[in-house]
Amino acid sequence: MLHDVLRGDFRAVARLITIVENESAEANSYLRALFPHTGRAFTVGVTGAPGSGKSTLVDRLAGAYRRRDNRVGIIAVDPTSPFSGGAILGDRIRMQSRSLDPGTFIRSMATRGSLGGLARATTDAVTVLDAAGFDIVLVETVGVGQDEVEVVRTAEAILVLLVPGMGDDIQAMKAGIMEIGDVFVINKSDHSGADRVEAEVNALIAMSNRSDGWKPSVVRTVASAGEGIDACVNAIEGFRQFQNASVVKRARQVHIQKERLLELVRSRVTRELLRDRQGVERLEQLAARVADRDVDPYSAADELLTLSRSLKDRREE
Amino acid sequence: MLHDVLRGDFRAVARLITIVENESAEANSYLRALFPHTGRAFTVGVTGAPGSGKSTLVDRLAGAYRRRDNRVGIIAVDPTSPFSGGAILGDRIRMQSRSLDPGTFIRSMATRGSLGGLARATTDAVTVLDAAGFDIVLVETVGVGQDEVEVVRTAEAILVLLVPGMGDDIQAMKAGIMEIGDVFVINKSDHSGADRVEAEVNALIAMSNRSDGWKPSVVRTVASAGEGIDACVNAIEGFRQFQNASVVKRARQVHIQKERLLELVRSRVTRELLRDRQGVERLEQLAARVADRDVDPYSAADELLTLSRSLKDRREE
Repeated sequence: MLHDVLRGDFRAVARLITIVENESAEANSYLRALFPHTGRAFTVGVTGAPGSGKSTLVDRLAGAYRRRDNRVGIIAVDPTSPFSGGAILGDRIRMQSRSLDPGTFIRSMATRGSLGGLARATTDAVTVLDAAGFDIVLVETVGVGQDEVEVVRTAEAILVLLVPGMGDDIQAMKAGIMEIGDVFVINKSDHSGADRVEAEVNALIAMSNRSDGWKPSVVRTVASAGEGIDACVNAIEGFRQFQNASVVKRARQVHIQKERLLELVRSRVTRELLRDRQGVERLEQLAARVADRDVDPYSAADELLTLSRSLKDRREE
Repeated sequence: MLHDVLRGDFRAVARLITIVENESAEANSYLRALFPHTGRAFTVGVTGAPGSGKSTLVDRLAGAYRRRDNRVGIIAVDPTSPFSGGAILGDRIRMQSRSLDPGTFIRSMATRGSLGGLARATTDAVTVLDAAGFDIVLVETVGVGQDEVEVVRTAEAILVLLVPGMGDDIQAMKAGIMEIGDVFVINKSDHSGADRVEAEVNALIAMSNRSDGWKPSVVRTVASAGEGIDACVNAIEGFRQFQNASVVKRARQVHIQKERLLELVRSRVTRELLRDRQGVERLEQLAARVADRDVDPYSAADELLTLSRSLKDRREE
């Protein structure tokens, strides 16, 4: 399977992503083997409020990168994305342009109940796509929710979508994602209020003080009509070049890896428990005792942590 | 401080929540000491899309419970909530009715970068409020995002807000939160389209097949005008009584505690690393080496897991 993944076989890639998503027993050895083959793909996180048109933009960006002879991977971790199966039929049809293209691989990630956290699962999926030779990986995620923001933070370039006149909620959200955007896209810019949003974004950018010295680009698009897409790709590529020349590029990469390692450590400790029958049973018993107020959850967690390590030790013997 | 918390002193409660939120060294012993005093509060999770009027409804529900002589705690984990400081001035003013009431305690939780996960931090804060004698704890969270959904899942009753005509995105979201709602509130029900949403919700409820046999209630409100609030409280209380009589109540509680224990185990393992200088330095070194592709992240995570335990052992000696 590794061989098939490395030569970019879609079916093998899909299968391996399922394995790493579920943290199956063999996931780790696969990921270890793939890692030396990674480092070429450029990851773009695309985030914004529900209804800002993320999926349509991702679809168009994929098309534009395809025309530049890039192989494109799309990972949708947005529960409202048609890619991830959350939305209605109309959206699905809208998105088919990409799903029929043999040079574009589309994958949705479960946004609920993913055992080791969404950021861990997404980063591992990006590792697979990177090793499989995809040049660009677009990660679509809704700009609300802690885990979703964590996901987008692991991308090398972060694209934040805004739309005219979406009211106070978007204003609130904007403040939170403002700090992390490398490129701001004002989508649906044919709607009234586009000038106002652009002025607001520019005002915020003027006040911002990024450690890398990058002044985020602002691009207007009408993704549904394909307008502004090339300008958007140029803005992404502009940031990419800036970053390559920047001394702080390494600092950002180290920071990304730090978050990733913590996430991996977290997911590993519960996986050790849940892959073992004894671990699962003890968890069940302790949960029942906590519900009965027979033991406090903090002491119970300590016991489970100790059990997790002894299970790991036993397994490795 | 524990004494002050137990007699419900707001300042002590606020201070202790900060301690548990940050997982300070002394947090655990406080939580252990408080746990025997918990079990009385009833926790209601309130979730819905941005713009559905969650904060206004929470404000009104708090008022209604206050009139029934309950002490009310509010925890806002919604980045778009005025309680949590995400929104603009107009919203803040709208919410002041509750913030001036000495029988209502309001607390916002950080939705980003909370070390051990949002669900862990929120559950610990609920523990503090429970021990401090609050009868009702309302947890407001946006209905998008994995962590936010996890938060609301730990509540004893889950209230899902819907609004007329919010389009496809809400439709998509609705599918995800449909399964977890005990009470559905159609807010802004004076807007056109309320009948249609109600019919859709009822159709989904008719098809649902809950293991506890509860048929979720549907209530119409205009929270901003205070309409339907008593009906909403009655629906919550109806579910509470049903649940008390139900044989599956315990199963739900055990499930909640199971999730909580896993969350605690996860947060504990990284806390052991990050509270120690050696752990922080090694994490930094390994992240740099991963960024340089000098070591793969999976081996690095294994090393950190081993280090985490030896740091814990050393600390406990």
